[in-house]
Amino acid sequence: MSSTLAELARQFELELSGQADLEIKGVCTLTPGQAGHIGFLANPRYRAQLAQTQASAVILSAEDAQHHQGNVLIARDPYLAFARIASSFAPAEVFQAGVHPSASIAVDAEIPSSACVAANAVIEASAILGEHSYIGPGCYIGRSVRIGDACRLEANVYLGDRVVLGQRVRVNPGAVIGSRGFGLARGPQGWEEVPQMGTVRIGSDVEIGANTSIDRGAIEDTVIGNGAKLDNQIQVAHNVHIGEHTAIAACVGIAGSTRIGARCLIGGGAGISGHLQIGDDVMIMGFSMVSKSLSGPGQFGSAYPAIAAGEWRKQYARVRRLERLEQRLATLERQAQTNKDGEED
Amino acid sequence: MSSTLAELARQFELELSGQADLEIKGVCTLTPGQAGHIGFLANPRYRAQLAQTQASAVILSAEDAQHHQGNVLIARDPYLAFARIASSFAPAEVFQAGVHPSASIAVDAEIPSSACVAANAVIEASAILGEHSYIGPGCYIGRSVRIGDACRLEANVYLGDRVVLGQRVRVNPGAVIGSRGFGLARGPQGWEEVPQMGTVRIGSDVEIGANTSIDRGAIEDTVIGNGAKLDNQIQVAHNVHIGEHTAIAACVGIAGSTRIGARCLIGGGAGISGHLQIGDDVMIMGFSMVSKSLSGPGQFGSAYPAIAAGEWRKQYARVRRLERLEQRLATLERQAQTNKDGEED
Amino acid sequence: MSSTLAELARQFELELSGQADLEIKGVCTLTPGQAGHIGFLANPRYRAQLAQTQASAVILSAEDAQHHQGNVLIARDPYLAFARIASSFAPAEVFQAGVHPSASIAVDAEIPSSACVAANAVIEASAILGEHSYIGPGCYIGRSVRIGDACRLEANVYLGDRVVLGQRVRVNPGAVIGSRGFGLARGPQGWEEVPQMGTVRIGSDVEIGANTSIDRGAIEDTVIGNGAKLDNQIQVAHNVHIGEHTAIAACVGIAGSTRIGARCLIGGGAGISGHLQIGDDVMIMGFSMVSKSLSGPGQFGSAYPAIAAGEWRKQYARVRRLERLEQRLATLERQAQTNKDGEED
Repeated sequence: MSSTLAELARQFELELSGQADLEIKGVCTLTPGQAGHIGFLANPRYRAQLAQTQASAVILSAEDAQHHQGNVLIARDPYLAFARIASSFAPAEVFQAGVHPSASIAVDAEIPSSACVAANAVIEASAILGEHSYIGPGCYIGRSVRIGDACRLEANVYLGDRVVLGQRVRVNPGAVIGSRGFGLARGPQGWEEVPQMGTVRIGSDVEIGANTSIDRGAIEDTVIGNGAKLDNQIQVAHNVHIGEHTAIAACVGIAGSTRIGARCLIGGGAGISGHLQIGDDVMIMGFSMVSKSLSGPGQFGSAYPAIAAGEWRKQYARVRRLERLEQRLATLERQAQTNKDGEED
Repeated sequence: MSSTLAELARQFELELSGQADLEIKGVCTLTPGQAGHIGFLANPRYRAQLAQTQASAVILSAEDAQHHQGNVLIARDPYLAFARIASSFAPAEVFQAGVHPSASIAVDAEIPSSACVAANAVIEASAILGEHSYIGPGCYIGRSVRIGDACRLEANVYLGDRVVLGQRVRVNPGAVIGSRGFGLARGPQGWEEVPQMGTVRIGSDVEIGANTSIDRGAIEDTVIGNGAKLDNQIQVAHNVHIGEHTAIAACVGIAGSTRIGARCLIGGGAGISGHLQIGDDVMIMGFSMVSKSLSGPGQFGSAYPAIAAGEWRKQYARVRRLERLEQRLATLERQAQTNKDGEED
Repeated sequence: MSSTLAELARQFELELSGQADLEIKGVCTLTPGQAGHIGFLANPRYRAQLAQTQASAVILSAEDAQHHQGNVLIARDPYLAFARIASSFAPAEVFQAGVHPSASIAVDAEIPSSACVAANAVIEASAILGEHSYIGPGCYIGRSVRIGDACRLEANVYLGDRVVLGQRVRVNPGAVIGSRGFGLARGPQGWEEVPQMGTVRIGSDVEIGANTSIDRGAIEDTVIGNGAKLDNQIQVAHNVHIGEHTAIAACVGIAGSTRIGARCLIGGGAGISGHLQIGDDVMIMGFSMVSKSLSGPGQFGSAYPAIAAGEWRKQYARVRRLERLEQRLATLERQAQTNKDGEED
């Protein structure tokens, strides 16, 4: 499959500069780039790579296009244009509809003929699958789960009882949605379980990463809004709410009952305590520990960057000496005050 | 199923204040609350919500009950009372005993007729299951594993060879228990594997969270004590010992051979280095890095909380300037000493 | 199976001191140690345990051997010698070659007769398995995957389409290799997916830990070099490159497109931002946040260790007061300058 540069310009509403009938066979990186393919420049940091690229064409902002001689598609947002052009070249995720003979399907599960249930998947009683949904090998779909149209669950995904997925939800391998929340009460003999009677409700156009876990609610539900995107290895505790179009990078942990607003960006490895309110449009830097509610919009951080170990040890020693430093300063201030008082006598 | 308030008071040994024959159909949150249901107030932070609740009754401490007009069950520990009442309303985790035809069972595995082995589970040679145990779909039970009575393994759980579970152990989906410890020795050609010959021994009444991993011991075993509770996404390395009734929140990592005492509380995202001794009743705050042994009882922490990014950058710059600050202070101290010496002359 | 101390000395090229015909049945820890077994001392911290050990022999450095009366094998690297001796006693990971009847195998997958495909494994079209490879229960092997000789995939491992494994690669349970990278572009209606068209290429003698996830590349591939060792619960994002013989401890997250050199050691819980260059022989301390490129060799760190919570709160308060401290110091400096100017008048 290939398209001319002019066809791509027309299809994606971009301005063309250069050879209109150039055949483009796919996308490539800027460095080294590949003949017959189209690359892109979105981050000004990589501007210097533009001159050396072997890509036959590039997607550029109007500003970058002024300084480039080659074949260009000019986009207001080069990365978004690249995403769409790349999608047009990417192989579709086709599957053959039907239920694999090794799958275990409860008699009253509803599986439309356009859906696929792959090998060894288990679909429990009263589960309902949407049209054109794909349930990968080894997936477990609990009782009364409702899966919307065009959802895609890769292999070994777990959906607990009554979990709800909207439309076009993508769940990557090993993700666990609807496991028991970590609800415990101290009893005289040790911890006693607090039953977790809620479930997880996920909107449409959500992505859940590989090996990510989302616990079900204790009384009410854990809720993930439309368009939210969760990366791999994330922990979402019971009763958390995540707002629409919020994106969460890998290895983030969110403790119970915290509510996160819409369009937030949460950096990798961040941790958010329980029972907090995070407003809309909050950007949390990677590796931050959030222990108080944050109102948006705004950017927040807490982690110190790694430095040479010798310097890091000295830095920490200086922080440990701060108490003494404050005392020394106070001593000097008292002396200065004494001197001043003396002068004023 | 429903109970009168008087029946609940009697069953759970609570004091009743209000309408004894009130029918309670289940539990609810305090806000908004639900007619016909019972809520609870355990955290004084939410006291203001009591006046607005639509719950028909609430579980309160004696102190809070003094200020509330409605139907009340008075408990010394309202959260514990709630946990038990909620359990009485929660649907039991019933299963049908028997082995699913798609399960693969070694001929000499011992499976009591009261146990359930679900679809696609694999039980290897010489494994022994306890009475009333539930082995979920896609679980793998290694050779010579011993599982006590009334254990519940949700879907896709892995138990390596010779793993031992006590009674009433709950393992959530995707947990891996008994995988190879990360034992490596530097050889002339690169890393050489140190064989991991131990296994994992888990006591009774333990919970293991979704996608948590517990490695087997190198020579001796990794050990989890009775009543310990582990949340999701936790890493427990080889030869770690975790004491009885210790609770560990999500995303914690514990490096090899560290021993953690009884009744500890470890906050989410904390990391604990290897070969340490953590005493009984130690409370480690979320996101802390523990790099030295800690004796209990006591509370420990290290992480700084997230603040506005601009202020965070300034704070870090000030920490970086501490060396210069100490030098400036020393200069002033020398000047002050010189002045003093001058005056004393 | 047992060997004499002399046989072990000869086989592993170690110097013997003591009873040559002593029968050794296996390895043991130094404390308490076990009669008929051999222990080792590698860490000087545990030197005091040597006198009390019940091990019948120990592997020691020449220096430690001078101070020990018992049966000794003297090694330049006692831990490496222990690893090799332990391997000689460890049971081999034998399996029966053949395809389990419950496995689902695409007609054109290539499975040598020396390989084992366990229960419920799924092998997709055009996948190629190496000789003596073991594909554990519930594993998913995507289309056109290539697995080298003597690889071992434990249960419930996921390999996405076109993933390549070299020889002797070990993948622990629940690991996900080749899942969709977290590629998203902001569109007018929310996030749009950037297709992830690359795959993951893994060299020979690599270990991947339990529940670790490695995303496939966006355009090009994610690459793990020969001899690299990854522990559990690690996240490797799209287009990351990890150099040969680099070892990464548990719970580390590496963001997209970062390149890590050879022979690096990355401590547990560390986080590395995207698009960085980490040189060869870099050692990153546990729990560090790496946000800038680092050239090697060198050791780097950033995390502060946990201290008693009361002291930790005071320490943080002092850091928060640094702005005021700097102002107070500047005031004193101005006063000192004024005094000096006055004296000079």
